[in-house]
Formats: sequence, structure tokens, C-alpha cells
Amino acid sequence: MNIVAIVSGGMDSVTLAHHLADAGRLSHVVSFDYGQRHARELTFAALCAQRLDARHSIIAMPDLADLLSTSALTGDGEVPEGHYAEETMRATVVPNRNMIMLSIAAGVAIAEAADGVAYAAHAGDHFVYPDCRPEFARALERALELGNVGFAVGSFHLATPFINITKAGIVDIGERLGVPWAETWSCYVGGEVHCGRCGTCVERAEAFALAQVDDPTTYADPSFWREAVKA
Amino acid sequence: MNIVAIVSGGMDSVTLAHHLADAGRLSHVVSFDYGQRHARELTFAALCAQRLDARHSIIAMPDLADLLSTSALTGDGEVPEGHYAEETMRATVVPNRNMIMLSIAAGVAIAEAADGVAYAAHAGDHFVYPDCRPEFARALERALELGNVGFAVGSFHLATPFINITKAGIVDIGERLGVPWAETWSCYVGGEVHCGRCGTCVERAEAFALAQVDDPTTYADPSFWREAVKA
Repeated sequence: MNIVAIVSGGMDSVTLAHHLADAGRLSHVVSFDYGQRHARELTFAALCAQRLDARHSIIAMPDLADLLSTSALTGDGEVPEGHYAEETMRATVVPNRNMIMLSIAAGVAIAEAADGVAYAAHAGDHFVYPDCRPEFARALERALELGNVGFAVGSFHLATPFINITKAGIVDIGERLGVPWAETWSCYVGGEVHCGRCGTCVERAEAFALAQVDDPTTYADPSFWREAVKA
Repeated sequence: MNIVAIVSGGMDSVTLAHHLADAGRLSHVVSFDYGQRHARELTFAALCAQRLDARHSIIAMPDLADLLSTSALTGDGEVPEGHYAEETMRATVVPNRNMIMLSIAAGVAIAEAADGVAYAAHAGDHFVYPDCRPEFARALERALELGNVGFAVGSFHLATPFINITKAGIVDIGERLGVPWAETWSCYVGGEVHCGRCGTCVERAEAFALAQVDDPTTYADPSFWREAVKA
């Protein structure tokens, strides 16, 4: 089974690629440049594909930043600080982002006769992001099957191996697979090092702590996450 | 109810925009430039939006032509001649195209608090294109609802007013709404005038004949369609 994986260069999606490659199922890594504030993570996506000997494509969608500009990730809004699972994190939602990426990745997969796509939705995302929930993934898989009957190779799969696993669980899996954590990027702010204060930095640091795995990340503010998690 | 409509500039989607505008539901026309052989139809999409006083956005996806290159519409493959509903027309399929366009249009709709998207799938497309069938549309609508719970305005709609109407039926509707047919484009070949021999030219000419509406289109080969339809 050949899978096209969506990899941003963050720790979840890089671990996803390693997980698929470990099972001999990774055929192609696709990344999206939809006008993120910074593209540092794309460098880590490219390194990941290279390491795993997979094809890598970056798909540019230059017009989407403006059109989908309710979001702090692509617009001028401030990046909210604090724990990820808070109301303020809703400002980081790019509307329908996962469906957009999955539908394009599925087109790529069908064009090259791969039989599925994968994304790194995990249990910690369910609260804020409806498009990371299992019911969404199953509904989209159904639409992918019905929309490509006779064109996809057999029945088309939407693989979500982490959808019921926490981010700490992903650290466990990645540690076992030898994921080089320093070659993953989480921070939304995009400085020289991880800021330590934005939602994904807090979530990243917490996941390493919960998994009891050494966190090799350099954070500008290395202690903020403990306060944010307590709050 | 405000709807973001996908309009290519062809007769079906231009009629869709008129149909939505007539009901006071058209808020935004979006068109896609995914590396089509020619962009003449996009001009007609822009004219349509202007005529209906709707916002128009062209969304470029410059990388998709190569990645989805199984298709004659974006690649170097020959455009097949003959009737649309034939096996050869499968070569014109851009993998997962409708889901890609609908997912992006849905992102746009959610960003601007519109409550739905629409596309011009019609009954004549069902045979060749699974992503024009009602069961696909309903499955995708379900995924759109689940993926955007709490972000979309109320329940999110995927409007498909023509999905059980033939192309001749669309001509009837468009005629009633005063669609200027000369400002729509169907031909896949992309010459100065419609070729009259490709699948969409044949389908276009046949639809006007079946609807008993004068076809204002200039075809390079005006009689070929009758042979193709008989074959």
C-alpha cells in the first residue's frame, strides 16, 4: 500500500512520515505553502522526505492567505499565547485547511496510483479543531471513495494512525522510530529559535515532558509552558 | 443565505451563478487556474461576476498541473474527440478536481461567513465523473459540516441545484434567466472559436439542440456533433 503523506515539518507529521516509511508504505511527502507566516518548517519537511528516501512536493497556494484571512496563522492577527486547548487558539484556525490539503494530496495520490493519503491529526487536536476528529476523517474518506470510484486504485484510504493518540503518545512513537526531533519545527511565531510561549510551543514542551523524553528544543522562554499548562 | 459559487466560465457554471443571483443568494464567484491549457473561460467567469455584481476571485494553483498530470486537460495528452459520455473522456479527468475546488471554496465561504458553496454538477456528468454524482455531493457536504462545526455559520451547505438536471435542462434555465451564452466557453482545445469536435463542444451543441434554443456559438466544425451524438 502506497500512501501520500501530508507533512508540514512539525513533530506530528514528521513522525507520521517515519511511521509510514517504517511500514514500507510511504511513497510521497507533500507540503503546502499557503502563506504561512514563515516557511521554516517546510525545510524540515524536505529533510524528512530526503531522510526517508521519499519524493517531496511543495504545493504553493499563493492566493489562499488573503482569502482565508480570518486566521492568525496567515494574516496580521497576533499569534495567541498560552495553552493550545483554549478558546484563543480558535484564532489559529485556517478555515477548512485539512480538507483542502487532503483533497489535493488525494488528487496527487490518484494521479500516481497510490492508494491513500495520511495526515497527522491527533487526539489533542479534537477539542479545538473539528477537522482533526475521527468522525470528520471517516466522512471525508467516504467522500473520497465515492468521488473517485473507478479512478482510484481499489478502495481509497484516508490513514489517520494518530487520531486517537495524544501528542505525548506521538513522542513515544517517534522516539522508538528514531525521529530527529531537532529537525522538526512547531513554533507559530517564527524566530530564530522556538518562542516557548505560543500554543504549539507550549504543547510541544508539554508532550516531551509527559512522555518523559528529553526535549532537545531551544526555547526563547523555556519555562513559560509550565505556567501555561497549570493555568 | 450567501453562497460562494465555483464558476469556470462554462455554460453550466455561469448559469449556476445567474440562478443563485436570481434568488439573491450569490455572494462570491471563485474560479480556479490549475494550469488549464487555456484560460479563455476565466475571462467569461470574470464577466459573469461583474454582470451579477458579485465579488470574483481567481485562485491559482500553479503546481497542480504537473502533479495531477494524468489528465489531458492539464498535460500534453491529446484532447479526445467525440461524445462526452464515452470511455475516452475519462482522459479528461483531473483527479479529485471537484473536491479540491469545493474544499477551497468552502474555506473562502467560512472565512467570510457565507453559509455554503455551490457547483454546477449536472446529470449528464454522472456517467463519467463520480465527483458529479449526488452520493458524492451528499458525502462531501457531511464532511464539510463535521469538519467545520463551530466555525461555519450554522449548518454548512453544498448546493447542487443542477445535479439531477441534464445539460439541456440547464439551457432551459439559463434561457429563462437571460444568460448571455456567447459569454460562456466550453471548448477544451482553446482555439479562436469553439472547435466543435471535442467532448464539451459536442455536448454543448447537443444541449442547445435538445432544448430547442438557438445556439449562438461559432464552431470551427459546426456539423461534427451530429455525427458524434449518433455514433
